[in-house]
Amino acid sequence: LRAANPGHWRRATAIRTLTLDAVAAANSGHSGMPMGMADVATVLYEKHLKFDASRPDWPDRDRFVLSAGHGSMLLYSLLHLTGYPEMTLDQLRNFRQLGAITAGHPEYGHAPGIETTTGPLGQGIATAVGMAIAEEIQRARFGRKIVEHRTWVIAGDGCLMEGVSQEAIALAGKLELSHLIVLWDNNGITIDGKVSLSDITDQKQRFKASGWNVIEVDGHDPVAIDAALSDAKKGRKPTMVACKTHIAIGSSAQDTSKGHGALTDPDLIAATRRAYGWEHGPFDIPADIKAEWEAIGARGAEARAEWEMRLAELGAGKRGEFERALKGAPPRRLSATIRALKKQVSESTPKVATRKSSEMVLEVVNPIMPETIGGSADLTGSNNTLTKDMGVFSPEDRAGRYIYYGIREHGMAAALNGMALHGGARAYGGTFFCFTDYARPAMRLSALMGIPVTYVMTHDSIGLGEDGPTHQPVEHLAICRATPNTNVFRPCDTVETAEAWELALTSTSTPSVLSLTRQGLRTLRTAHSNKNLVSQGAYILADATEKRMVILMATGSEVEIAMAARDILERDGIGTRVVSMPCWELFETQDEKYRKKVLPAGPVRVAVEAGIRFGWDRWLYGERGKRDKGAFVGMHDFGASAPSEVLFEHFGITAEAVAKAAREML
Amino acid sequence: LRAANPGHWRRATAIRTLTLDAVAAANSGHSGMPMGMADVATVLYEKHLKFDASRPDWPDRDRFVLSAGHGSMLLYSLLHLTGYPEMTLDQLRNFRQLGAITAGHPEYGHAPGIETTTGPLGQGIATAVGMAIAEEIQRARFGRKIVEHRTWVIAGDGCLMEGVSQEAIALAGKLELSHLIVLWDNNGITIDGKVSLSDITDQKQRFKASGWNVIEVDGHDPVAIDAALSDAKKGRKPTMVACKTHIAIGSSAQDTSKGHGALTDPDLIAATRRAYGWEHGPFDIPADIKAEWEAIGARGAEARAEWEMRLAELGAGKRGEFERALKGAPPRRLSATIRALKKQVSESTPKVATRKSSEMVLEVVNPIMPETIGGSADLTGSNNTLTKDMGVFSPEDRAGRYIYYGIREHGMAAALNGMALHGGARAYGGTFFCFTDYARPAMRLSALMGIPVTYVMTHDSIGLGEDGPTHQPVEHLAICRATPNTNVFRPCDTVETAEAWELALTSTSTPSVLSLTRQGLRTLRTAHSNKNLVSQGAYILADATEKRMVILMATGSEVEIAMAARDILERDGIGTRVVSMPCWELFETQDEKYRKKVLPAGPVRVAVEAGIRFGWDRWLYGERGKRDKGAFVGMHDFGASAPSEVLFEHFGITAEAVAKAAREML
Repeated sequence: LRAANPGHWRRATAIRTLTLDAVAAANSGHSGMPMGMADVATVLYEKHLKFDASRPDWPDRDRFVLSAGHGSMLLYSLLHLTGYPEMTLDQLRNFRQLGAITAGHPEYGHAPGIETTTGPLGQGIATAVGMAIAEEIQRARFGRKIVEHRTWVIAGDGCLMEGVSQEAIALAGKLELSHLIVLWDNNGITIDGKVSLSDITDQKQRFKASGWNVIEVDGHDPVAIDAALSDAKKGRKPTMVACKTHIAIGSSAQDTSKGHGALTDPDLIAATRRAYGWEHGPFDIPADIKAEWEAIGARGAEARAEWEMRLAELGAGKRGEFERALKGAPPRRLSATIRALKKQVSESTPKVATRKSSEMVLEVVNPIMPETIGGSADLTGSNNTLTKDMGVFSPEDRAGRYIYYGIREHGMAAALNGMALHGGARAYGGTFFCFTDYARPAMRLSALMGIPVTYVMTHDSIGLGEDGPTHQPVEHLAICRATPNTNVFRPCDTVETAEAWELALTSTSTPSVLSLTRQGLRTLRTAHSNKNLVSQGAYILADATEKRMVILMATGSEVEIAMAARDILERDGIGTRVVSMPCWELFETQDEKYRKKVLPAGPVRVAVEAGIRFGWDRWLYGERGKRDKGAFVGMHDFGASAPSEVLFEHFGITAEAVAKAAREML
Repeated sequence: LRAANPGHWRRATAIRTLTLDAVAAANSGHSGMPMGMADVATVLYEKHLKFDASRPDWPDRDRFVLSAGHGSMLLYSLLHLTGYPEMTLDQLRNFRQLGAITAGHPEYGHAPGIETTTGPLGQGIATAVGMAIAEEIQRARFGRKIVEHRTWVIAGDGCLMEGVSQEAIALAGKLELSHLIVLWDNNGITIDGKVSLSDITDQKQRFKASGWNVIEVDGHDPVAIDAALSDAKKGRKPTMVACKTHIAIGSSAQDTSKGHGALTDPDLIAATRRAYGWEHGPFDIPADIKAEWEAIGARGAEARAEWEMRLAELGAGKRGEFERALKGAPPRRLSATIRALKKQVSESTPKVATRKSSEMVLEVVNPIMPETIGGSADLTGSNNTLTKDMGVFSPEDRAGRYIYYGIREHGMAAALNGMALHGGARAYGGTFFCFTDYARPAMRLSALMGIPVTYVMTHDSIGLGEDGPTHQPVEHLAICRATPNTNVFRPCDTVETAEAWELALTSTSTPSVLSLTRQGLRTLRTAHSNKNLVSQGAYILADATEKRMVILMATGSEVEIAMAARDILERDGIGTRVVSMPCWELFETQDEKYRKKVLPAGPVRVAVEAGIRFGWDRWLYGERGKRDKGAFVGMHDFGASAPSEVLFEHFGITAEAVAKAAREML
């Protein structure tokens, strides 16, 4: 190999030795994957990937996703070698150290060129599907001159074993995402040993079964790789290139599970360098090799400049829209549109489920926000996620903005991440709240990456009724609230739902979970306010008319129970305030003064929520509250199968129970 | 169809009309799937399924798993018709009503014959893999005369779209589970419309790619179905039978997504009954048809009686072991074995990671508990889950008790459920704690079903170091604690780990999550106690020597930080108690007197845990605590990539910080 392609060899070897050096310096990490895939990555960056290292934010660049995120040194090496300014040699030297941008696994936001966070296996390939969808939709809208790029993925055996990869592969196959190319690092090794210990799947046949092109190639032959990648770009379907590679190639750990991990033994490293014919010291990349790599990094500069000219030639309106969506800025009309809807419903006071409220919001928002991309995991009619204007995205209609994800909550969530990361898209997707469980790994990444996707989670409590405990969330509000950087909205009516959506649609760095009911709810916000009250997280919905002795705190469908309990208590002369708390996270960010105004010391407190208590003690006992003066009315275990009203009665989540709990503390 | 097989037709029609009647009575449910799969199910129960309706607990019965759980009326009808005593006609009339055993989706424990809870799609097929593994292992141990049965699954398109199905299929294919037969309800319809809206996967090719036999059949032709099921039983690999069916067959909603849901329109129902040639009233099954079905239900009685004789002929020792394992009873030696290990380590005081402690426990437990089945999702060396005596389960070695699950956390968790449900197995599986996210839907089912599987979750905090935020759990303790009926153990040393394992291994109706460290920890329990202190959930590890002014509460790796903080405070004359809280759930079940003894009113409290605060306010402010007298030292956001010690310092989780927090409240 080395003799046949000496130029290629030394460029690829630069990746391999940087990997060995950085892992040795960190005394931890994963050496084998970057060593094994260095040839493929070199050919990809040298001849196929459309990018300009000096402008990593070029919107029409190809996206490169390292789904096998443990091989992070492959990516860091490439970024350093091709000249991404942030990825200095010092950063490589500080691989896996506090404050370095070179984390153990690639972290989105740490450095340009890291297109997504990977490490949890299967996430990269599933996220890439969303990127490829976003690209298709934007190409349909803005034309090939502005949008014409590919999404490349390097995935390992682990990615392909994770179930989410099946969801991604099947979805991409159905949608004929021809700009998606997956390079499978077929090295036959996992941590526990040979892949054959746990898998005999014919991956080529599996991809073909879902409508992919499949190409096989020797992952160490640069000429063959080049030909394969050229072929892959011609396909009218997504393409999987099976790259036969040797993990930790050239070392004594080659083709073993030991090679997967950190190769830190100095003798092994020295021997490997000798095998590579590499005579330079640690982190020492000869200037000529670095120059070759930097030329590769500059290869796309011309195309990028031409693209900028084409963008400039676009009509001002279209260009403005392109740039606005890219920035994630909402259209100017958004807030007026939301206000108008709020005014209308506060007057007409419809009794509707908040999933229907959500649809009412989307019906007015989607037409003015063409960057929205909606969808559902096969619950469109239940999640109320499809609006009239959207059109359905398919191989036949690339301008459609609604995705039928199929029964693939996890794949959907990862795709939402991909759309948000791609830019130019504001993505939301729906399923039953209980099935956030399926989507959790991707939802965690939304939060960790700080990207503003919206999860439309309907059927959010025992209020869904007869489907029973398997479908009734009880712990899921706690689970979502426990996740850092996640806004969990549980609106009580259409007005709050509109306000929650406004916050979700204008969020810049926080994902939103909308917890919505199946069952109809009264409109409680009947006095119109231009102000977005949900933005404060919690607020006084109805104050005590008598001396304030009780504060009732509630969210979503239980706010109307709290209001009814207030009626009972006030009738007996017990002054009662109702605080609606649609978003704890935003309330936490309010200043002490406001929080104190809403939750002053003194009155007894009762929290009402058709979920478990976990987390509520903060508001009951903390925040000027007092032990023995706080009670909770809600769920204590899993639900049951019965009509909704029967269940609320059965589990004691009623106005009478709330009033009783308050009285007992007075 | 009707004319060719009149006897079959009327038996199958009984299922279809009971479904229509029950859904109409409930005014909710899913009609189309039972209607479409009635022919397949009739042939299965009539000619292939090994069962005896009078003895649903027969250990050597075939298992039937309705993975498409929304079609619950198919199962309930079958159980009623074949004469399972509990499944009365009244139960069918009360379909989906409070207190009935006929929940919206089949709930394990509600009635004999419901082998597992299904509804969340894909769970059934993945659980069935565990059942089939348990059967193979027990056959190897007890012989074919005692263990020789099959696991049958009905799975829909939804099950096959869920990613977990891929994990299940690939695992079953690798393990050559020939006693696993999946009947795919190939009706081409999902809730959103045709399957082709979201999927073009060639399922037959997909199963073949993972080493399955595939058979195709007309799902309405009883003769062909019979032949296909006979063929399926002969295979040496797992078999998928693709049954081409018509959803909601015979109704005007046939072959439409409307047919998936509740068909409640009286005219539609009347017309469908006419089309079936069924002249009987709602819930009216003519005696002769019921008698035919009951004969089917009694078909296995003879085989069951013969089996009982064979069991009786087994040597007393072997029979005793078979029955003990089936009951889930621990061997008598278990507690002495645990005590001996505790005594030994409290004397030798090793400094080891609790994942290593867990291995030390398993090394002494596995040899005396041959019913354990261990495994890991490709992290064997990291989770420390494999012990010397186990052997690896494979097509070549059916007596092996260790499963290489591959990178399939979700499939592993579902398989653990299946093993526990099958009976005779005590199953545990390991992965990184952070990747409970992947396994969550199956972990929730462990809790909902109340089955005692054990999750060995290592690398349980920022203490794992350089792998960074994608691998560092911060919210996962809260997530697991928020889940009802789940014991979350976070032991602080080897002694607590042994105690936690003892509780997990003797649990009868609660799954256990063991949260274990990557990093080494000192032995803190140096005074041996025969009593299992973890069983109380929390206990006084070290009391104040001076006047008690401070109580420090901690779990796992932070208990040693609390102990060091106690040293600091006591040095300054501030009496400090350290409470180790390895299991909140068990502490909650202690009586008030004990809880008060451990957490009396008065002293200030500091909780220390390298996770988020969510949930801790209960112990800080509640339980005789006081707002302003409770503080938390732990994580407030996601982690970072750096060596462990650096991270604890960086995030301020140190003895000094704990001491400071206490002092500030005094």
